[in-house]
Amino acid sequence: MCIVRSFGIIGGDKRQIYLARSLSDQGYSVLATGFERAGDTVSCSIDEAIGRSDAVIFPLPCVADDKSVNAPFADNKIFLTDSVTDELCKRLVFAGMSGRLISAYPKLKSARIYDYAARDDFAVRNAVPTAEGALELAMREYDGAVFGSRSLVTGFGRIGKFLARRLQSLGSEVTVCARKASDLAFIESMGCHAVSFADFKTAHDYDLIFNTVPALIFDRALLDNTDRTALLIDLASLPGGIDLEYARGLGMNAHRALGLPGKCAPKSAGEIIKKTVLSIIEEVNR
Amino acid sequence: MCIVRSFGIIGGDKRQIYLARSLSDQGYSVLATGFERAGDTVSCSIDEAIGRSDAVIFPLPCVADDKSVNAPFADNKIFLTDSVTDELCKRLVFAGMSGRLISAYPKLKSARIYDYAARDDFAVRNAVPTAEGALELAMREYDGAVFGSRSLVTGFGRIGKFLARRLQSLGSEVTVCARKASDLAFIESMGCHAVSFADFKTAHDYDLIFNTVPALIFDRALLDNTDRTALLIDLASLPGGIDLEYARGLGMNAHRALGLPGKCAPKSAGEIIKKTVLSIIEEVNR
Amino acid sequence: MCIVRSFGIIGGDKRQIYLARSLSDQGYSVLATGFERAGDTVSCSIDEAIGRSDAVIFPLPCVADDKSVNAPFADNKIFLTDSVTDELCKRLVFAGMSGRLISAYPKLKSARIYDYAARDDFAVRNAVPTAEGALELAMREYDGAVFGSRSLVTGFGRIGKFLARRLQSLGSEVTVCARKASDLAFIESMGCHAVSFADFKTAHDYDLIFNTVPALIFDRALLDNTDRTALLIDLASLPGGIDLEYARGLGMNAHRALGLPGKCAPKSAGEIIKKTVLSIIEEVNR
Amino acid sequence: MCIVRSFGIIGGDKRQIYLARSLSDQGYSVLATGFERAGDTVSCSIDEAIGRSDAVIFPLPCVADDKSVNAPFADNKIFLTDSVTDELCKRLVFAGMSGRLISAYPKLKSARIYDYAARDDFAVRNAVPTAEGALELAMREYDGAVFGSRSLVTGFGRIGKFLARRLQSLGSEVTVCARKASDLAFIESMGCHAVSFADFKTAHDYDLIFNTVPALIFDRALLDNTDRTALLIDLASLPGGIDLEYARGLGMNAHRALGLPGKCAPKSAGEIIKKTVLSIIEEVNR
Repeated sequence: MCIVRSFGIIGGDKRQIYLARSLSDQGYSVLATGFERAGDTVSCSIDEAIGRSDAVIFPLPCVADDKSVNAPFADNKIFLTDSVTDELCKRLVFAGMSGRLISAYPKLKSARIYDYAARDDFAVRNAVPTAEGALELAMREYDGAVFGSRSLVTGFGRIGKFLARRLQSLGSEVTVCARKASDLAFIESMGCHAVSFADFKTAHDYDLIFNTVPALIFDRALLDNTDRTALLIDLASLPGGIDLEYARGLGMNAHRALGLPGKCAPKSAGEIIKKTVLSIIEEVNR
Repeated sequence: MCIVRSFGIIGGDKRQIYLARSLSDQGYSVLATGFERAGDTVSCSIDEAIGRSDAVIFPLPCVADDKSVNAPFADNKIFLTDSVTDELCKRLVFAGMSGRLISAYPKLKSARIYDYAARDDFAVRNAVPTAEGALELAMREYDGAVFGSRSLVTGFGRIGKFLARRLQSLGSEVTVCARKASDLAFIESMGCHAVSFADFKTAHDYDLIFNTVPALIFDRALLDNTDRTALLIDLASLPGGIDLEYARGLGMNAHRALGLPGKCAPKSAGEIIKKTVLSIIEEVNR
Repeated sequence: MCIVRSFGIIGGDKRQIYLARSLSDQGYSVLATGFERAGDTVSCSIDEAIGRSDAVIFPLPCVADDKSVNAPFADNKIFLTDSVTDELCKRLVFAGMSGRLISAYPKLKSARIYDYAARDDFAVRNAVPTAEGALELAMREYDGAVFGSRSLVTGFGRIGKFLARRLQSLGSEVTVCARKASDLAFIESMGCHAVSFADFKTAHDYDLIFNTVPALIFDRALLDNTDRTALLIDLASLPGGIDLEYARGLGMNAHRALGLPGKCAPKSAGEIIKKTVLSIIEEVNR
Repeated sequence: MCIVRSFGIIGGDKRQIYLARSLSDQGYSVLATGFERAGDTVSCSIDEAIGRSDAVIFPLPCVADDKSVNAPFADNKIFLTDSVTDELCKRLVFAGMSGRLISAYPKLKSARIYDYAARDDFAVRNAVPTAEGALELAMREYDGAVFGSRSLVTGFGRIGKFLARRLQSLGSEVTVCARKASDLAFIESMGCHAVSFADFKTAHDYDLIFNTVPALIFDRALLDNTDRTALLIDLASLPGGIDLEYARGLGMNAHRALGLPGKCAPKSAGEIIKKTVLSIIEEVNR
């Protein structure tokens, strides 16, 4: 049984500031390090933040290529000393993309490290601020209203599902492109139009196009058959699914949008990290 | 390449009548047999219905235990003669639960039979009239309005998803019970309350309870910890997930609801058979 | 300042039973009379029910033509004696269609009687169970699912608004017929189709038709130009807005649906009476 | 009977460019003047634009204080000569805030001028892009997601209605403040929380606050009782309903947002002008 009453927050951006605040609001004792430049967030030394905490949370991603902790608000780069890694091995450690942490500090192989960002529930929850961020971007870049627009979402994973629902609820006429017959049936049963990738050779009459598939869907051939007036937003992780350069060459308004939860809704993103970390602790104790 | 211009409809209930009508409206030539008592539906002989058609559709389920075709509107029982099965082997045949057809008429092993009811897209599409039928039953049996009610859905498969969304859109405060952490995250991200089956020992403060899980969820222990005023509706296939007898013994209003698409919305159910059959033909020709 | 701690409930149907229960759950002392045949509802004498209460609630409608209180669950007819009316004059009295009560018992002219059923907020709240009841009826009578149907609502008052929204959220393609240009603009801005009554001469391609206008909209001429397969539901107060007899003569499935909150959702209807009565008391005390 | 086949568009911003395009797409002949700097929009002389058109459309607002037509994309200021006003008197003229046009050019008193911006249906339709623009601003300025937020809308007119619905459909917990009992009942019947202005003395626990009432609602006393972390957006026409200066002095993030349709969704705003103008022509011909 792991009783966690206190958390050390080691670096990170606004998400971790909100994470710290939310944990504190929920009654946990919280010590943060690496936020010297973040205004009203109190920072202590890393030794204190770890030494006085039952569990430690690193950001997403946890470390940079030079092995420093990802801490944009820190006065100085944060590296983990041997005494710090020794202390970490005695605690529950949470990190986003934890593999990088272990590569950088091999001693941590023996630590109990949980990668919150690798979990499905984390990805599901982040699909909500991602869908909202995509909506915000579309609202900013598109000269019309979402209401009355015609939109296309390629891919029907988590983000595709939440995004299609939001577009629909704001009054857009939504088409979703998917592969599986059961997904196509689900899409139609939601009240959207469904198009099979097998039949997807042209993209006409859409005002807003969102790609969520991490494979080159909008290649040159398809872009040649897409209306120039469509707004293109690529939400897929790199290398993405839209040939943005070619699209811009055609005069299209095309955007890559990555890391939206952290950029558009760091408060929610921080609360999602909190929920995931607390779920992991609960599962560990089950 | 299978070009299908004409369909023979062999028996079935109102679903197949609507199927015939919908195919005909779409321009197909349709011949039906086994609808003598169905009022304004024109019936011909089975030989004609099969002999003059490119494809033949049997109902869901296709045959009864006595090998007769499931044809409640027929004047007489319909059995397949050898000449009929020979003809069927030359055509595309569609049937619901086609295994029963082949068991009853082993000669059909060599026929090209497609079981539309076994497909995922068929099940997904039928989840919509199932959810509506459950809603209709709840509206009829519950003394309050769905708006302002508190409802519980156990299980987050197709039916659970569509039902939860409908309850929510009508203004019920919805809780969904599921097993996987990612499903629980999805449920919360839809704006519903999520409860893990691991923590599900009592069911208090719900007005409407719908079970969709085909395993005994509401056993005696749980029913003893469920409010007596709750309306219970079991949507799970037999043997179901609610101990209905015990629930009724406790004075609860408890219902089993099976085959809702055919009972509550045969027109939609028939159109879903049509869509599935046409999808299969399209895939065959791809 | 009227401090009301106890209510006397004088007759009524299931709505008043739920009203009594809901007041009691909220901490009020409640005495009911006229529910002898209502199973588990405790009835006392009318003298006691009035004598020991700060306020008294009559049902909707409050009295019948023979001056007896509307009390379908009473063992005997309830008439108000002089001593009862004297007592009523000392209390806050709430009644639905209170004019009838005063006509029947003119002494009550000097009582402080509030007609909860005459208030706009009461009518607005009842539009929700009315819309749900209409939906339930449509689901029962229509062979298809609401999802994927095409529906028409004539009139854009309270009921029209709530009904159109519900049909839309269940996946029907909704058209609303209204008179004012601003209403037509609102309807389109909700994502429905709008038709002006000025242009409304035919009603083709609708599966479900709901009338909410208390004027003869669907007269013979219009019914002659309405598809025979449409389901017709008249929600308008008498004499209604559909020539039901003529419609049935044409072979159409046509229904008058009145008093839906009381019939379909007496629990909600009772809670709405409670909310309205409590609002009136609050306003009186302001 | 006024048959209008051609329109002259005299100045305006992006809205009028989209108006011109949309009229042209619908088959009307369109001549525009005052868009020399607008890139790909073809401009002709004002004499030609008026002389060869059946109807003429001025922007919203139509003229500036110096009597020049509101034409931000024009190379030179546009004033109406006597010969132009003479021609206008022979045509249907549409203008936003047409009173200013007549004040500036009194000869036009005898012209048939219709003020599209004064109509209720115009205001209703514009409430949609206004609500979307408010949402976009909130998404940009708020560090959390709308999903899971708690929002407050003061006022339940057109904009309040559309905005509350959108916030709700994106998963915010919405409270609406209104005056009338029937509006409060409607708000609750939509599934939102209702607060009466009579009881509205504090605004705690809201993340997002939108004012739509053109009267000083958020005065110093109320702002002193509003959480400092709330985002404040004032949508009410000048002088507005939030003491923005005082709010900012308290360290709050407070915004005035006016003219949102033109700023955030000029395409929709132009199409709304088109719809309103065509409705007026239809009514004129009825």
